[in-house]
Amino acid sequence: MMYPKSIQKLIDLFLKFPTVGQRTARRFVFYLIKREKKELENLARAILDLKEKIKFCKNCFKPFEGEGEICEICSDKTRDKSLLCVVEKEVDLESIEKTKKYKGLYFVLGGPISAIKKEELKKLRIEELEERIKDKKIKEIIIATSLTTEGEALALFLERKLKNSGKKITRLGRGLPTGGELEYADEETLKEALERRK
Amino acid sequence: MMYPKSIQKLIDLFLKFPTVGQRTARRFVFYLIKREKKELENLARAILDLKEKIKFCKNCFKPFEGEGEICEICSDKTRDKSLLCVVEKEVDLESIEKTKKYKGLYFVLGGPISAIKKEELKKLRIEELEERIKDKKIKEIIIATSLTTEGEALALFLERKLKNSGKKITRLGRGLPTGGELEYADEETLKEALERRK
Repeated sequence: MMYPKSIQKLIDLFLKFPTVGQRTARRFVFYLIKREKKELENLARAILDLKEKIKFCKNCFKPFEGEGEICEICSDKTRDKSLLCVVEKEVDLESIEKTKKYKGLYFVLGGPISAIKKEELKKLRIEELEERIKDKKIKEIIIATSLTTEGEALALFLERKLKNSGKKITRLGRGLPTGGELEYADEETLKEALERRK
Repeated sequence: MMYPKSIQKLIDLFLKFPTVGQRTARRFVFYLIKREKKELENLARAILDLKEKIKFCKNCFKPFEGEGEICEICSDKTRDKSLLCVVEKEVDLESIEKTKKYKGLYFVLGGPISAIKKEELKKLRIEELEERIKDKKIKEIIIATSLTTEGEALALFLERKLKNSGKKITRLGRGLPTGGELEYADEETLKEALERRK
């Protein structure tokens, strides 16, 4: 026997979500079936709003909501424009912001990448980064990739790519536990890592 | 710093999904942000369709799509109408259907329930079950709850509730699961397996 078509269709869509397998996808659908119509409309609306309201900053590629083409960090006059922190993904940026220790700018490469393969690298905003760092105000580029195998490989790739940029290139200090993903790091560890950067 | 409003809203909605925590909810949202507008519309549509297309069978409470008020199992003339298998939730019904060994009818109680508490029991379709089994064609009620603490408690509750119904009440057979190694079987399972040997 098969599930009704509209159930199966939603199961298939949830299966494409990261970390979601058959069992979880089914649980999601049966959870939703039991919700009120208004709640489902609310969810559907929120999903559509993502595309309609969220823009990506032309400078750093952070998603944001609001006027103009530049996010609130890039347009914040109090931020230190000489520092550019390069992160793999948006959540990494949020983790660093939470420390309240970093007052420079960011650049979101667009990961995560499962491994450093030629095809994977193409998905990252390498050219956009090279374009961005032509900005004379930027003096230092902090490569803030995760300390995983992939993150380290990416960091090495970036260091090589940027070494003739005339900018100071730094990495996060080894306050981060080896193998630790930035996304998981606690604020204290991240603070240390930021302060000990070299 | 906070996420943009429309991102935070969707994160909060995903947090209500079963098994979804902060990190997964965020990953879902950033997965969706990167999708094409058409894909998001597709997903939103599928969520709304759930409520518009799916009905619950008036007999067994299985969700179904199609004409009338009775699902395809309850209206299938080849099924054995003397057998009623009571399951906690829809996915349990699907698991039994997959065996292709059972040709009777079903009743979905509407679990899962986290524990047998008075308030939790109210959420189950106990009254509807008592109503359903007034059907004279039903001769045997198979209580097919999980063999967890909660499932066992529910089974005992149902057995007590239905013992004066004049129907034969049975439970699923217990023993070693196929492929189960003796070495790893718990005592309870082994005891059951020994007692029910044949």
